[in-house]
Order: sequence, then structure tokens, then C-alpha cells
Amino acid sequence: MDSEDQLVERTGRAVPSRIGKRARGPLRLGIGDDAAVIAPSGHSEWVLTCDQFLEGVHFLADSHPPDSVGYKALVRATSDIAAMGASPRFFLLALALPSRRTGAWLDAVLHGIGRAARLLNLGLIGGDTTEIGKVSINITVLGEVESGHAVMRTGAKPGDIIYVSGKLGRARLGLELVRNKLTKTPQFRALLIPHLYPRIPLRLGVWLARHRVPSTMMDISDGLSTDLARLCRASHVGARIWAERVPHAAIPASLLRRLPQSRLDPLQLALHGGDDYELLFTVPPRQAKRLRRAPGFRDLTPIGEITRGKRIILLGADGAGSILKSGGWDPFRRR
Amino acid sequence: MDSEDQLVERTGRAVPSRIGKRARGPLRLGIGDDAAVIAPSGHSEWVLTCDQFLEGVHFLADSHPPDSVGYKALVRATSDIAAMGASPRFFLLALALPSRRTGAWLDAVLHGIGRAARLLNLGLIGGDTTEIGKVSINITVLGEVESGHAVMRTGAKPGDIIYVSGKLGRARLGLELVRNKLTKTPQFRALLIPHLYPRIPLRLGVWLARHRVPSTMMDISDGLSTDLARLCRASHVGARIWAERVPHAAIPASLLRRLPQSRLDPLQLALHGGDDYELLFTVPPRQAKRLRRAPGFRDLTPIGEITRGKRIILLGADGAGSILKSGGWDPFRRR
Repeated sequence: MDSEDQLVERTGRAVPSRIGKRARGPLRLGIGDDAAVIAPSGHSEWVLTCDQFLEGVHFLADSHPPDSVGYKALVRATSDIAAMGASPRFFLLALALPSRRTGAWLDAVLHGIGRAARLLNLGLIGGDTTEIGKVSINITVLGEVESGHAVMRTGAKPGDIIYVSGKLGRARLGLELVRNKLTKTPQFRALLIPHLYPRIPLRLGVWLARHRVPSTMMDISDGLSTDLARLCRASHVGARIWAERVPHAAIPASLLRRLPQSRLDPLQLALHGGDDYELLFTVPPRQAKRLRRAPGFRDLTPIGEITRGKRIILLGADGAGSILKSGGWDPFRRR
Repeated sequence: MDSEDQLVERTGRAVPSRIGKRARGPLRLGIGDDAAVIAPSGHSEWVLTCDQFLEGVHFLADSHPPDSVGYKALVRATSDIAAMGASPRFFLLALALPSRRTGAWLDAVLHGIGRAARLLNLGLIGGDTTEIGKVSINITVLGEVESGHAVMRTGAKPGDIIYVSGKLGRARLGLELVRNKLTKTPQFRALLIPHLYPRIPLRLGVWLARHRVPSTMMDISDGLSTDLARLCRASHVGARIWAERVPHAAIPASLLRRLPQSRLDPLQLALHGGDDYELLFTVPPRQAKRLRRAPGFRDLTPIGEITRGKRIILLGADGAGSILKSGGWDPFRRR
């Protein structure tokens, strides 16, 4: 493996970073010393989260393009910052790698991290590198939010409308293509994007927090059924979801013919598929019309409402209700 | 494995943490939401660092007591905060574990982390847990320092006096006991402590930064020879070290009889042994007398001086000089 200094240099070339220099803005000292130094302004609060992206658990080093591995590692970690309504600012990167992954593979991973960092406006300010048997990417992200504006999971009230951004289940559909080795089929290539290169609705999250529209907000990383249950638990409430309103991915007939159909019900993917990184938030009814000014308003869907009690009910088209069980899962995760 | 919620609860019992509650001080929101929120004051800067502590690289899960694994993981990460002269405040903990390590072993690790957190005055504000084949402990630490007072590696000038705190090589001596399976021998037990439960000179670091005594400072984590070379590179200077002055561990004759002597020259351990987490700093001569008021002044040793040029020279008792090569190493690390 390169020396740690060489790795820092390679990383610095691929990823927006400040190496040891004083910079404008809140960053006082970047990579290269014992630690980074930031000088916050008095008007904002800092939001912090960390996330692991591990070979064999979250990605397959031989099946997933390394550029996607790097990109997704940073996007996943940053999704939690967006979910607070904060703007991403800085990140720290701890890498552990086997020596055979330190050449071109690592360069591609760093390229993917760099691409995500530019998209998310993140600067690398620190890290650590070690040699080990399996790839592990650990990322800590710092975001900034106007004081008192961070949107939490607590505070949803009965009657609040439940919204989601985007369409759900698209990442899970892309994963099915990887698992069934259909990644080279040109007609399905676009369906892979949400799995390999997810986008997060950053501008929407910041807008919602700034205008104090939602009562609660979180990202959908483990599937709607799992994450909505977490939101309800944190707020001590229940929910009622209209199955027909849950925005889901369209599955082309040509793909259905190639895959075992039982696994690919669009509603099931939307309810339980993870990795979408869309926003889930609740809005008091009197605030709902303010949403029209939100960036990406057309991609927002009201899917249900918060209820008293603690159950989450899924209402079918016929009006019949059933309890929605948390079914979010990651097929790589051994439980 | 327990559910993530149960793990968060177990961690919260063992480690000082704020679970989802608003708290006094800069912490606005702790564990349990998408991310933690801190509200910094305008007078201070935040110092950030991350560190990996990995099974088979930094510790042996079957040889090292799990309490020490947890303790040391947090102390190592925090050492970089102390090295900036900052006070530790908060940390994030990302754990990856095989399922057979999630029972009593994990409880002992968490106990060790909790012990270190109380000693270092650190609160846990976030984390992530995943199941995987080998143990990986990833820690991000945030410290706070008065604006403009963080002490960096750049800025050492020719003539500055080089100081170290404590005695060097003690952690490496303890490691030799582990490697030679002498951990159960009662007479050697005290020699294990610096390896298993290192202390970091936190108060000293904070005092030095507050009084602006040193021109540069860093911690000695990879051995004096390696870390001094880093400091000199960052400051574009060289150094002259008096071998006789380097404070080293005493090795009992009874231990020398039990171990291959060639490995245990006290000066070699002090120069190249890692894991000591003592402070290495440089002081302009006119500032040196102010050091007398430093906490732990008696444990400080001037070992040499900064020179023009880029070489690091080790001067023997006879006045003969030789180039000091970076020899710090970690026997678990495969290179």
C-alpha cells in the first residue's frame, strides 16, 4: 500500500478538500494535522452523523462499480443531514482496505466520493486509512442549519399529513437487476441509477426546515414501513396510509418477464424496499398549502395521516385496513 | 444480534450519552434522531478527528481484554483532540461486529468505552451498528478550543526546544508482554497498563494551548521517530535529539530474562515504540520558563531542538550524531 501521506495526496486530488490550508468560511484547518478546526458562526447549529458502508453487507466489491461504491457511501451518510433540513458542509473519511483494492479500484472509489462531494457541496477535512481484509468505508458528515430550525422525528400530531418525496422502491428495483445479473442489458440500464447513484432531495430538506413547514422529518433509508414506524415511535403516534397513493416505480413488462414476479410487486417494493433516501415528513394541515412553494413540489405525495394510538394501518382501495408491519430489509445483511 | 434500538439502549446504559433529550451546554439533540445537533458558542472553535480501531490490526480480540479494547479505542481517537490543545466534548461511535461478539464481549467493550468517556469528559451523541465478520470500531471525536488557540504542527522555528511528556516506550513494553503471553504474571501486571489503558495528558494540552506556550504540538501515536519527522515535515525544519535525554521506561531485569533481549533496548522502545499518546511539542526559548506552571511540569523533558535543514539527527552521549530514521511501527499492521 502507499504510505499514508501518498494516500492523503491521492485523496486530495480526487475529492474536494483543504489540505492543511486556512480557507474562507468556517474551516480553519483541514487535512494534514492531528485534527480539523472549524469556527462556527453564532447563528447556526451543527448537525453530525456517521455511517458505515461495508463490503459484503452494503455492497459487493466485485458486482458494484467502485465509482458507485464511493458515490453511494457519501450520499447515504449525507442523507441524514438532509433529513434534518441542514446543508452539508464537511466530512471525515475512514477507509480500511485490502492491499489488492488500493490501486485502480481505490482511485475509482475516490472518484465516486469526489463526484458526490461536489454534488453535495461537501469538503473533506480529515480521515484515517488502514489495511485490512475487507473494504470498510466510514463517513462522518457535518451539516449546518439555522439555529433552532433542525427538523426532528419527534412532534408529529394526530391529523398531520404524511408526505414522501419522489417515488419509492426504485433503488430496490435496481438492486434486483444487480442480483439477477441484468446490469449489462441496455434497456434496463436507466433502472440501475437509483440503486447505484441515488440522489437526495437536499434543496427540499433545507427549504422545509427554513420555512418550518414540517412537524417531523426523516429520510427513508430502510424502507417506508420501517422508517415510518420509527417516526411514529419517536412521536408516540400512529399512522394511516392509503396504499393507492404510495408513489412507486413502474416496472417494465420486459423486466417482469425476466425476473421472478413474486418479488416485484411495485407496492411491496415501495413499502419495504430500502435505499431510496427520499424524505418522509409530516405537515400540520394548516401548513400544507405553503408546500406549493417548495422546490420539487410536484414530486411530493401525501400518502396518509398521523393518528392517535400507535398502530400503522395500510388502507387498500376497497377501504379495508391491515396493520403495516416493518418489512424494510437489506438482502446483504445477515440477521 | 439485538435490534439496533436495543443496542442503542445497551450503549446508553454503559456510556455517558444523551438519548434524544435536549440538554444543557452546546448539545441540542443527542442519539436517536437522524443526526445530532450542537449549538456552538461564538467564542470557541470545534476540533474534529476520526480514528479506526480494528481487530487483527490494532488489537487481537482473543488476547486483549474487551474492556481495554473499548477504553483504548476512545482514548486513541481523543489523543488527537488533546494534541490540538482542545477539550474533548462529544463522540460518534460506529461499530461493526460479528454476532458472536455481541453478547458479554460487547458489554465489556462498552464498559471500557464508558470508562474512557467519563475520564475524558466525552458524551456519546450518535452512531451506527452493523453485523460483519471482524470487529471494527470507528470513532469521531469533537473537541472545543478557544478561538485561534488550537496548536498545529506547522510553525516550529530553528532554536525551538523540543519537549515530550511522560516516558516513552512503555506501551510498546506492555505489548511485548501480550505477544509473549506474560500477561498473567503478577509481577509484570503494572507494566501492561500503559499498553491496555493509556492515559493522555489532556490537562497539559489544554493548558499549553490556552497560554500559547508551544509553537507546535502533536501526539506521539506512531513512535517518536515517526511523529517527530511528521512535525518537522509540516514545519519545514529539522531536529537534533540528545539520545541520553529521551525519557524511557525502565525494564525490570526479571523481565529481560524472560524475553529476547535484542528487542528490548529501552532507547529503541522510546524512539520507535508507538501507542504512547504522550505529547510532543516545541517551545521558543523565550517561552520555556513559563512551562514551570504547566500541570505535570515535572513529567516534561526537553529532548532536543529544532534546526535549519530537514534532517533529524540523534546525538549519542559521545557527541557523535546519526540520522534518526522513522521506525515507528505496529506489529499487527501488515505492510
